[in-house]
Amino acid sequence: MKTFSEILTEIRKIDNGLHGKDFLLTWEKSEGELKQLLLIAEAMRVLRENNISTKCFDSGLAISNFRDNSTRTRFSFASASNMLGLEVQDLDETKSQIAHGETVRETANMISFMSDFIGIRDDMYLGAGNAYMREVGEALDDGFKNGVLAQRPGIVNLQCDIDHPTQTMADLLHLVNHFGGLDKLAGKKIAMTWAYSPSYGKPLSVPQGIIGLMTRFGMQVDLAYPEGYELIPDVVKRAGIQAESSGGSFRVSHSMEDAFKDADIVYPKSWASYQVMQQRTDLLRNRDTDGLKSLEKQCLTQNADFKNWECTEDKMKLTKQGNALYMHCLPADITDVSCKEGEVSADVFEKYRILTYKEAGYKPYIIAAMMFANRFGDPAKILEMLRNKATPRVIG
Amino acid sequence: MKTFSEILTEIRKIDNGLHGKDFLLTWEKSEGELKQLLLIAEAMRVLRENNISTKCFDSGLAISNFRDNSTRTRFSFASASNMLGLEVQDLDETKSQIAHGETVRETANMISFMSDFIGIRDDMYLGAGNAYMREVGEALDDGFKNGVLAQRPGIVNLQCDIDHPTQTMADLLHLVNHFGGLDKLAGKKIAMTWAYSPSYGKPLSVPQGIIGLMTRFGMQVDLAYPEGYELIPDVVKRAGIQAESSGGSFRVSHSMEDAFKDADIVYPKSWASYQVMQQRTDLLRNRDTDGLKSLEKQCLTQNADFKNWECTEDKMKLTKQGNALYMHCLPADITDVSCKEGEVSADVFEKYRILTYKEAGYKPYIIAAMMFANRFGDPAKILEMLRNKATPRVIG
Amino acid sequence: MKTFSEILTEIRKIDNGLHGKDFLLTWEKSEGELKQLLLIAEAMRVLRENNISTKCFDSGLAISNFRDNSTRTRFSFASASNMLGLEVQDLDETKSQIAHGETVRETANMISFMSDFIGIRDDMYLGAGNAYMREVGEALDDGFKNGVLAQRPGIVNLQCDIDHPTQTMADLLHLVNHFGGLDKLAGKKIAMTWAYSPSYGKPLSVPQGIIGLMTRFGMQVDLAYPEGYELIPDVVKRAGIQAESSGGSFRVSHSMEDAFKDADIVYPKSWASYQVMQQRTDLLRNRDTDGLKSLEKQCLTQNADFKNWECTEDKMKLTKQGNALYMHCLPADITDVSCKEGEVSADVFEKYRILTYKEAGYKPYIIAAMMFANRFGDPAKILEMLRNKATPRVIG
Repeated sequence: MKTFSEILTEIRKIDNGLHGKDFLLTWEKSEGELKQLLLIAEAMRVLRENNISTKCFDSGLAISNFRDNSTRTRFSFASASNMLGLEVQDLDETKSQIAHGETVRETANMISFMSDFIGIRDDMYLGAGNAYMREVGEALDDGFKNGVLAQRPGIVNLQCDIDHPTQTMADLLHLVNHFGGLDKLAGKKIAMTWAYSPSYGKPLSVPQGIIGLMTRFGMQVDLAYPEGYELIPDVVKRAGIQAESSGGSFRVSHSMEDAFKDADIVYPKSWASYQVMQQRTDLLRNRDTDGLKSLEKQCLTQNADFKNWECTEDKMKLTKQGNALYMHCLPADITDVSCKEGEVSADVFEKYRILTYKEAGYKPYIIAAMMFANRFGDPAKILEMLRNKATPRVIG
Repeated sequence: MKTFSEILTEIRKIDNGLHGKDFLLTWEKSEGELKQLLLIAEAMRVLRENNISTKCFDSGLAISNFRDNSTRTRFSFASASNMLGLEVQDLDETKSQIAHGETVRETANMISFMSDFIGIRDDMYLGAGNAYMREVGEALDDGFKNGVLAQRPGIVNLQCDIDHPTQTMADLLHLVNHFGGLDKLAGKKIAMTWAYSPSYGKPLSVPQGIIGLMTRFGMQVDLAYPEGYELIPDVVKRAGIQAESSGGSFRVSHSMEDAFKDADIVYPKSWASYQVMQQRTDLLRNRDTDGLKSLEKQCLTQNADFKNWECTEDKMKLTKQGNALYMHCLPADITDVSCKEGEVSADVFEKYRILTYKEAGYKPYIIAAMMFANRFGDPAKILEMLRNKATPRVIG
Repeated sequence: MKTFSEILTEIRKIDNGLHGKDFLLTWEKSEGELKQLLLIAEAMRVLRENNISTKCFDSGLAISNFRDNSTRTRFSFASASNMLGLEVQDLDETKSQIAHGETVRETANMISFMSDFIGIRDDMYLGAGNAYMREVGEALDDGFKNGVLAQRPGIVNLQCDIDHPTQTMADLLHLVNHFGGLDKLAGKKIAMTWAYSPSYGKPLSVPQGIIGLMTRFGMQVDLAYPEGYELIPDVVKRAGIQAESSGGSFRVSHSMEDAFKDADIVYPKSWASYQVMQQRTDLLRNRDTDGLKSLEKQCLTQNADFKNWECTEDKMKLTKQGNALYMHCLPADITDVSCKEGEVSADVFEKYRILTYKEAGYKPYIIAAMMFANRFGDPAKILEMLRNKATPRVIG
C-alpha cells in the first residue's frame, strides 16, 4: 500500500481536468483524470481509516435524486456526502410538485440554491437517463451564469441507461488494489458475461460501463452473451476503439466458457437486451401494464433458455489457474440462496463473497473523490491541509 | 448593494421583537420587525457568498412537517436549517403512529426534545392550517413551561390556509433589491391578479399573503379576479385598513387589464375561491371522493370561462412603460410549456424567468433569518461574531 | 440533582462492559452496566442543558431501520445521533433492492461502510425481531473481521418482539429521578398491568421489558392481565428468577385492583397475548388478509370483555396514598380523548400527562448513552473532555 505522501505526489503530477466538470460517463474523462480519482479515493480512505476528518465543507447540501430503487448507491452517496461535510437532501419526486408539469430547467434551479452536488440515478428509460442528467446540467449552467445560483452544483451520475461510473470506478479501484497497481492491469483478461436470472429488465449500465472503462487500460476485455442480449451498439463500438488505442483487446462472443477461458477476472451478470429495454421504455411511457406483463413473460421465457449461463465451479476451472477474480455489483442472484437458479452458484459466490463486499466498499470513496475533484482545483493541496489539520473523526 | 457593516448598523437600530416569537402571519409583525428580517437575510447572504460559515448551532434539529407536497419550500427549509447548523428531521405522518388518535399536544412535545425549530406546511383545509400551527405552539409553550422541553422550538409557517409568509417575505426582498430599497416601494403599483389555470384547488395563501404584506409599505395594491373567486373576507378587509394607515391604497376589481394598467409589478396567479376551499375542506374531511370529483369538474368548468385571464405580452403593454416586473411563486402554469393554456404566455414567462428564479432564491435566506431572529435577541452581535470568526464554508 | 463531577466520579467506578457490545436485551447487561447508562445519560443531559456540545463525532452515519411505524423512537434516535455528531440515514426497505432476495448478511455490510451505529425496530413478528438484530450483528462481525468494514457499527434495539430497552431504560431513569436514586427503588411496588384498548396487536415488548428490567433492582413487580393475555413464558420465568436474586418480588395475578393495591407505580397498557402474536406472525408471513381480519375481530371481541381494565381515579385510590406514579410509553388510549373507551381515563391521564412527557424525554439521552458506552471504553474521560472543551451548542 502506498503512503499518503506517495499518493499526494502522484496526484500532484496530474492536471485536475475534473475541476468544475460533471461526471456522467467514464469515457468522457482522460485516463489521467480517472487515475486522479482513484488516487483521491485512496487518499481519503487513508485519512478516514486513520481517524482523520475528511470534512471540507462546514455546511452545504448534496441532493440525491433516485428515480429508481437503490440501497448500495444511496448509502454510498450519503456516506460520501457526509465524509465531506455535506447534508443529503433527497428529492423525492412523489412528494414534490414536479408532477404539475414543472420543467426540469426550473426544478434543477429550485433545489440548487444551497447545493454543492446533485447525484442522480435514472436507469429505467433507454435514451433518457443520461440525457436527463445533461438537461439538469444545462439548467444549472444557465442558472449559475445568470446569477440565480451562487455556485454551480456538480452532477454525479449514480447510474443511467448508458453507464454506471460510480460502480465501475469502484470496480476498477478494487482491481488496482487486488492486482497491485493500475499498470498491472494491462494484459489481464476480464470476462464481462451475461448470466441467467429469474428476473428481467436489469439495466445495461454495468456491462456497458465495464467494457467502456476496462478497455482504457490495455486489458483484454471479453464480452459474452447469448444472441439476443445485445448492448447499445455505440458503446460496444467505442469499447473496440478504446481497446485498440490502449493496446488491449475487445472481443464479443456468445459463449460463457469461451470468455472464461484463461480469464484473470470474471464479471457474470444478467441484463436485458437494449432492444428489450427500448420496448420496455415505450411501454412504461405509455403506462401499458398489459404490454409490460407480456414483455416480462416473453423475456423470462427467453432467459430460461440460457440457464446454463451460470457461474459455477466447473466454469471457474476454465479461468487462469482456475483462480480468476469473481466480481459483481451486487446483489447477485445466487442459486439456492437468493433464488432457485441464478447468475452464480452458492459455492462460487461464497468463495468470493467477502471480496465482492470489499469491491462495494470502494464506492463511497469513489463518489467522495468525484465530488472532491469537481470542487477543488488543487486536490493535493486540500488533502494535505486535511492531513495537517488532523481533526479527529472520533474524539478520544 | 449595502456593505455588511451598513446592514449591521441598520439591524442595530431595530428592537428585535421577533425574539422568541413564532412566525405565523406577517400582519402580526411590525414593519420594523419585517425590515429586520430582510436585513438579517441580506447579511446572511453576504456571509455565505463570501464563503463565511453561517453556522450558529453546533448540533440540533429542525423539524419539518409537510402536510402537503412541496419542493421549493422543502428545499428552502432544508437549506436554511443547514446554513444555521441544524439537521432536518421530517415528521412523516404516514410513517408515524399519529393516526392512532394521538393528540397534537402530545406529538408536538414528543418531536421537540432536541428541536430548535418546527416548520409546518398545512394549506389544504380552510380554517385549519394556521389554527394547527397555533395549537402546536400552545403545546410547546405548555411543554416548555412545565419542564418537558429544555428549549421552546420556534415555529415557522411554511404555508397555511391564510398566509405564506416565507414566500411573500422572499417576494418583498426581491422587490427591495429590484427597486433599490424598502423605501422605494411606496407609491409603486402592484397588481395581484387571478389567472387561468387548467387545474383547481390552488391555495389562497399567496394572494392573501401578498395583499396582507404589500399594503404595509405604502404601495398601491390592486387585487383583481373574476367574480366568484373571492379571498377570505377578513384578510381583504385587513389589507384595506393597512393600505390606509401606510399611505398606500388597496383596490379590488374584476378586470385583469384594469389592474395591469400602469402597474410597476404584476403577480398573476390562479387560486380557488375561499367558498370553494371551504367546500373542499368539508369534502376532504368526509373523504367524499365523488363530491371532490364533482367539485373539481364544476370548478374547472368555471375556470374555463376565464381563459382570457392570462398574462400575455399584450397585457404587459398596459403596465408602466410596458415594463412591469412579473412575479410568481412558481411553478407557473405556462401556456404551451407546462400546459396547453395557463396563467402566463411562454414569451412573457421566458422574459422574466431568471428573475422569478432569483425571487425564489431569497426564500432560504428569509427562513434562515426567521429562525435567527427567533433565536437571538441581539442578531447584529451574532452576525458580527460570525463575520469575525470567518470560518470558511468550504476550505481551500 | 448530582453535579457533573459527582456523576463522573460514579461513572469511573464502573468497568465499561458495554464497550463494543450491541444493546439488544437489558437482561444481557449487568446491573452495573445499566447504572452506567443512566449516569452517562444524565451527564449528557447536564452538558446539553448547559449549552455545551456533546458532539464526539466530526462525521459519520447512524442508520435507522424501522420495520414498523414510529414517531417517538424515530425522533429519539435522530436526536441522539445528532447530539453525538452523526447523521441519520434511514434504510427504507421499500425504496431499496432488498426485496430482490438480498441476504441480511449482505445488506448489513452494504449499509455499514461509514456507519457507526444501526438502530433497528422490528416488533411485528414474534420470534423474529430480536433474531433479526442478532443476524445483522453476526453479519457485521463477519464484515469487520474480514476487513470489509473499517469499524464495527453498534446495534441499538429500538424495539423488538421481546424487549424495548430504550423505552424501559428511559422509564427507569424517570423512576430514578422521581424517587431520588436507583437505590431508592428497592422495595417500591410497580404494577405492570394490561389495560383495555379498542385496537389490537399491540406489541409485548413494553410489559416484557418492564418486568425484565424492574425485577433487577429489588422492586416488587406485579404483573396483572386477564387470562388469555399471556406474555412469552421465558421472559416471565426470567423475571421471577431476577426478582428473587435482587431481593425483590415478582407476582402474576389476574386482577388490576389487586396489582394496584399499595402500588408506588402503575403502568397500565394494552397488549396482545403471545399466542395471538404468534398466530398473527404466521398470518402476516402467509399474507393471509382474511385470516388477519378474522383474528382482529376475534381479539377485539375478547378485548371488549375487559373494558373494566381501565386506569381510573377509583383504581388509583387503591394505590399507595392514592398517589402512585402513573407511567405509559405513549401514545396512550385515553378514554374520551383519543378513543371512546381506553386504557386510562381522561382525568387520570391529565394529572400525569406532563410526567409521561418527561418520561419520554429521557429516551434521546438513553439512546445517546447506549451509543456512547458502546463506542468509548472510558466514557468518563470523553465526557470530561467535552466539558473542558465546552464548545457551545448555540453560539452567542
